[in-house]
Amino acid sequence: MSKNETALGDSNSLTTSIARPFEQVIAAVKGAFKDEGFGVLSEIDVQKALQEKIGETMEPYTILGMCNPPLASRAIKAEHEIGVFLPCNVLVHACGGRVHVRAQDPVALFRIIGNPDVEPLALEVRERIARAIAAVSSAVGP
Amino acid sequence: MSKNETALGDSNSLTTSIARPFEQVIAAVKGAFKDEGFGVLSEIDVQKALQEKIGETMEPYTILGMCNPPLASRAIKAEHEIGVFLPCNVLVHACGGRVHVRAQDPVALFRIIGNPDVEPLALEVRERIARAIAAVSSAVGP
Repeated sequence: MSKNETALGDSNSLTTSIARPFEQVIAAVKGAFKDEGFGVLSEIDVQKALQEKIGETMEPYTILGMCNPPLASRAIKAEHEIGVFLPCNVLVHACGGRVHVRAQDPVALFRIIGNPDVEPLALEVRERIARAIAAVSSAVGP
Repeated sequence: MSKNETALGDSNSLTTSIARPFEQVIAAVKGAFKDEGFGVLSEIDVQKALQEKIGETMEPYTILGMCNPPLASRAIKAEHEIGVFLPCNVLVHACGGRVHVRAQDPVALFRIIGNPDVEPLALEVRERIARAIAAVSSAVGP
């Protein structure tokens, strides 16, 4: 099995990498997810947090917490404690001269719950995320 | 298998419920996690977000994103893209006259990655989270 089939439980569709400035990629991710109905509920600058807390230096490393309100509402109704897996994280980090974008796979994640009612919803969320990830590359180029 | 062994992939140790005011429980959770080295990196008020975005009413439902900086740093070094599963979510929600607290199980979550290097770290994180959850109950009573 390739790394993409095992590591982080996902295929190529939820990840991309781009040779563009970090902030430009962050903006492109936000725009692409907005087009799929996702707003930004949290934005965690891990580079800054680890610098401040333990004096560690690292390349830019940001976790965006994205939420599509109607889908989140449906998810909570299907499984009330699903919030422990929300929002949908998108990691944007610089490494090796490129900016890498990786979204959580909601299908793998929601499967931990073991509630079949959330599977169709997870598939729908994954489709939207995959379209957003594809749109990021289109928006800023390779 | 009982619900606690399957649903949300965890045992009783990562969940508790308390008959106290919501804000008091939120404060107790923050204090208990602080004692285990976790700071609050994000605080998402889902009740407020869904009210504002789609006009939906629900009981208080907050997702705290907790981070222990030295452990997060070790996790990122072991698996660079583990940030897609960070921070450690703790869901606090009111339901049926009680406030329920549920933390993500880092062992179940990190297992999605399929990298054995992160397993000992996940176990250490889970131990700390379990101690924090136990401390929440002690701090505010049953």
